[in-house]
Amino acid sequence: MVYDVIIIGGGPAGLSAAIYSSRSGLKTLLIEREMIGGHLIITDFIENYPGFDKGVNGFDLSLKLQTQAETFGAEIISAEIKNVSDGLIKKIITEESEYQAKALIIAAGTSIRKLDIDGEFELTGKGVSYCAVCDAPLFKGKDTAVIGGGDSALQEAIYLSKFAKSVKIIHRRDTFRASKNLQDKALNTSNISVIYDSVPLEIKGLERVEKLIISNVKTQKKEELELSAVFVFIGLIPNTALFSFLKLDESGYILTDENMQTSSKGIFACGDIRQKNLRQIITAASDGAIAAIEAEKFLQ
Amino acid sequence: MVYDVIIIGGGPAGLSAAIYSSRSGLKTLLIEREMIGGHLIITDFIENYPGFDKGVNGFDLSLKLQTQAETFGAEIISAEIKNVSDGLIKKIITEESEYQAKALIIAAGTSIRKLDIDGEFELTGKGVSYCAVCDAPLFKGKDTAVIGGGDSALQEAIYLSKFAKSVKIIHRRDTFRASKNLQDKALNTSNISVIYDSVPLEIKGLERVEKLIISNVKTQKKEELELSAVFVFIGLIPNTALFSFLKLDESGYILTDENMQTSSKGIFACGDIRQKNLRQIITAASDGAIAAIEAEKFLQ
Repeated sequence: MVYDVIIIGGGPAGLSAAIYSSRSGLKTLLIEREMIGGHLIITDFIENYPGFDKGVNGFDLSLKLQTQAETFGAEIISAEIKNVSDGLIKKIITEESEYQAKALIIAAGTSIRKLDIDGEFELTGKGVSYCAVCDAPLFKGKDTAVIGGGDSALQEAIYLSKFAKSVKIIHRRDTFRASKNLQDKALNTSNISVIYDSVPLEIKGLERVEKLIISNVKTQKKEELELSAVFVFIGLIPNTALFSFLKLDESGYILTDENMQTSSKGIFACGDIRQKNLRQIITAASDGAIAAIEAEKFLQ
Repeated sequence: MVYDVIIIGGGPAGLSAAIYSSRSGLKTLLIEREMIGGHLIITDFIENYPGFDKGVNGFDLSLKLQTQAETFGAEIISAEIKNVSDGLIKKIITEESEYQAKALIIAAGTSIRKLDIDGEFELTGKGVSYCAVCDAPLFKGKDTAVIGGGDSALQEAIYLSKFAKSVKIIHRRDTFRASKNLQDKALNTSNISVIYDSVPLEIKGLERVEKLIISNVKTQKKEELELSAVFVFIGLIPNTALFSFLKLDESGYILTDENMQTSSKGIFACGDIRQKNLRQIITAASDGAIAAIEAEKFLQ
């Protein structure tokens, strides 16, 4: 069987594309390799998705989007994709099957960037974490660190501060990239402090995280911090390994026009995986709707 | 007082901009000339706004958006704007006041296009209507007509068919522009019929609509239809009369880049009023978020 549209990725962009595509009467398959919801499911509380005046939990929103897509007839499966080939009929190869589609919507999102320092891999799950919402409650009353200076670093530091005894934000520059609103909140939280101009060098510990070694980038002075957890929020990497046949920017994000059209006919990209300025749930959902409607036009 | 951001228009684009702008800590004023919600409030049931898996009533969604914006501190007022002037400080003149802002977000949307034929103006509110959701219940068991062939014409015809005895869709072409899904629904509704290749010439009636005169564009043959209501859905006109100092396209829509930046520094446009391919609530809300974040960047 050939699907009208196959969507790769089940975050807000992919699910919104599935809603619009299946509602337009297109035979739609969505393939997600991990949990439906993408980054939504590791987001505790969303207060800025327009329409939810009381806010919404990320997991709940992802369930709503999935239900909505399935109501209109979208098929959703879980599989790891091994290869994608372009052509009049696009072929998606997973470990166990091959799926075919006339149009393809890529909404595979981004992955978390790692520090790539000694101790990080060994102590992941033993004090090294990439998700405060998931792991903060494990460090009640403990000393912790957050690495990063963007919106998500500060957001997660604020969340973590509700559980931890102390949160040290380690940031390599002398100013934050995060929005002013978040900076104010973080700097006014009594158990959050900031170490500027510093980068992590090594995480130490036998069974669990015990120490973080940092270095000041201006003075080169090293410092040893005793703590129980290191939360890392230093950015994202687009999941474009399978899509090197498309035009990408230097960071690996897929280049599209305003209509989500990639460099290949019948292939659209939407959400965090495409090059754009603002990566929010609302912009991902809008991208998905546009990609689906453009796919419908392409199929006509 | 000088606001950081003034938003013109209180539909989904303007309200989303207000949510994002006020949440970013910007002093934000939203000015709406009619009812908060824009076209939302004349939309009965919305099933494709991502996140509302059971659908949502247009009026309810507009209330939620308003509450959310006000929760973050946005000020919302009702006023008719007489003049807008550009400059380092933008000035917005209403009948009673003058408001000033460092950045301006235009989300003034579109107005309904009229037929411009005899009898239309005289019989508006007496059988001539531009909103099935508002007026359909008034024509229970009556013969009615819908003018148009796009998504909204068919959507409103389907809604109207639940009340009226019969709905004749008068369409000037021999195929519909509407999505296949809506075409299928309309054509499978027993009391909906279609008169293709025809345009309305005149609406007749003394106290109320009694007759619609139409003409076949291929044969020039005229026909007189006896009916009680004429619902008009032939498109929209962008509300850009106050913004002729910006670059507009030939239909009057405001030209922006992907970041909602207009031809004038510090002025952003979002939602239905800007030139783009897909006009949906979700794309309007996304536009609004982008405009607000770009306004924040501009102010820094």
